[in-house]
Amino acid sequence: MPEQVSAPGREPFGSRLGAAMAARGPLCVGIDPHPALLKSWGLDDDAAGLRRFSLTVLEAVASLAAAVKPQVALYERRGSAGMAVLEEVLASARDESVLTIADAKRGDIGSTMAAYADAWLRDESPLAADSVTLSPYLGFESLRPALDLAAETGRGVFVLALTSNPEGASVQHVGGADSVARRICAAAAAENSRYTGSLGSVGLVVGATVGDALTNLGIDLPAVRGPILAPGLGAQGATPADLRATFGAAYPQVLGTSSRDILRTGPGLRELREAARRTLDGLAGQ
Amino acid sequence: MPEQVSAPGREPFGSRLGAAMAARGPLCVGIDPHPALLKSWGLDDDAAGLRRFSLTVLEAVASLAAAVKPQVALYERRGSAGMAVLEEVLASARDESVLTIADAKRGDIGSTMAAYADAWLRDESPLAADSVTLSPYLGFESLRPALDLAAETGRGVFVLALTSNPEGASVQHVGGADSVARRICAAAAAENSRYTGSLGSVGLVVGATVGDALTNLGIDLPAVRGPILAPGLGAQGATPADLRATFGAAYPQVLGTSSRDILRTGPGLRELREAARRTLDGLAGQ
Repeated sequence: MPEQVSAPGREPFGSRLGAAMAARGPLCVGIDPHPALLKSWGLDDDAAGLRRFSLTVLEAVASLAAAVKPQVALYERRGSAGMAVLEEVLASARDESVLTIADAKRGDIGSTMAAYADAWLRDESPLAADSVTLSPYLGFESLRPALDLAAETGRGVFVLALTSNPEGASVQHVGGADSVARRICAAAAAENSRYTGSLGSVGLVVGATVGDALTNLGIDLPAVRGPILAPGLGAQGATPADLRATFGAAYPQVLGTSSRDILRTGPGLRELREAARRTLDGLAGQ
Repeated sequence: MPEQVSAPGREPFGSRLGAAMAARGPLCVGIDPHPALLKSWGLDDDAAGLRRFSLTVLEAVASLAAAVKPQVALYERRGSAGMAVLEEVLASARDESVLTIADAKRGDIGSTMAAYADAWLRDESPLAADSVTLSPYLGFESLRPALDLAAETGRGVFVLALTSNPEGASVQHVGGADSVARRICAAAAAENSRYTGSLGSVGLVVGATVGDALTNLGIDLPAVRGPILAPGLGAQGATPADLRATFGAAYPQVLGTSSRDILRTGPGLRELREAARRTLDGLAGQ
């Protein structure tokens, strides 16, 4: 495995995210411009609506959240015009000093995977984010070009591991004591050995409402030593208390992710901020 | 399961692809503007280079191939400018009456998956293709919004099932007699029961060089009754004879996919056509 490489002037992603979580609390706000939300904000379902929605969320929460997570599908839905909006959102987040997680769930092999890594993790790319979500159906190791480029540029990845949608088990739970999800977690743990500090730069996506699946599958998340992106807070059914119960000893690694529960309070900045603060209070409280 | 719906004026994708394979032969040409290929063609590694490369390949093979498969990662690598080129390539393919497979390997859940379906499979989308490749780490059933929209609009999907990259087995082969790959194939077979005709619109991606894994995993591809996108012809190591040996009784469903072996003969139209014809001869021959 290659040695950890420091990008010029940039700490590894895991260290940067750990510092942001310590300073602000473990909240990631999803920027999810779903058609229904655009409508409830009085915006058109077009690129201008996407832009207005996204920049408003960013303005409201950039100083409160440890990270923001634009949902790439919702920009891609508008083709190149939508992707141009996403470029602007990512650039604005950089200007506002909030970390970004491009929720793209990309995955491929070889030189094609390297192209996805270039798109999301290379300094010169117009879509460069602090981190990107990846999908490992082609094997964890197929993600190698992104793992290595992230290490080079001080960026990070979140690999889909164990999700809470009911259909996920038909792939992720398969394999008994050596399940697919457990293998992904073990591979992420090995990969994080290249990083010093309390959090490595190879994170996982683990649903906030997976219940006792972590225990049943024998998954040791503290050993992964990477951040855990846990979607599902609020509108999707999980409370901060659920997060603590589900993740136990791994709770300090967890970045709770809320989207609809905060976004539906918009478009007022004050309401968005209050909703984000309420969520943060829940995540920080006992 | 919803009934098959006929899109106005468009036959189901499986029927359209079957007709194209019967008329032209079972060849899909990958449009893969990798940086190294752009360089060997004397093009710059930028959006203008992508455009020139892609439209040249299309001009050369649109009347020869049953389908073309643009590799989305290589457009995304150039951000929104690259995605605008992809929109133009997809529109040109429509004008030239060659079927398109957007090789995007997308996958998500719920309303986010619906947004990916909108992007690639809805008539009004600037990125609308005849079909799109999907990744099922979140479970085959998580792809439901794309399966249903494809049925509605006469479009299709190719779901990653069993790939030939060495890392793929660590996910796809897991589960013994009830492996992940076998489950995906069984789900595709069930889904194709909504389609009449010899080929359903739910295809699979199965590597041309998977060897005896299909037999070892007990996978019944003829029962899937969908098209099989088999990357790996030529530069990636498989011959047409390998395809016949690997797929056996399922060979009539197989769409052999060649990229580099054809693309590296460019930028001359004559050379590209000759390479495509040679590959077609191999696929059609005994």
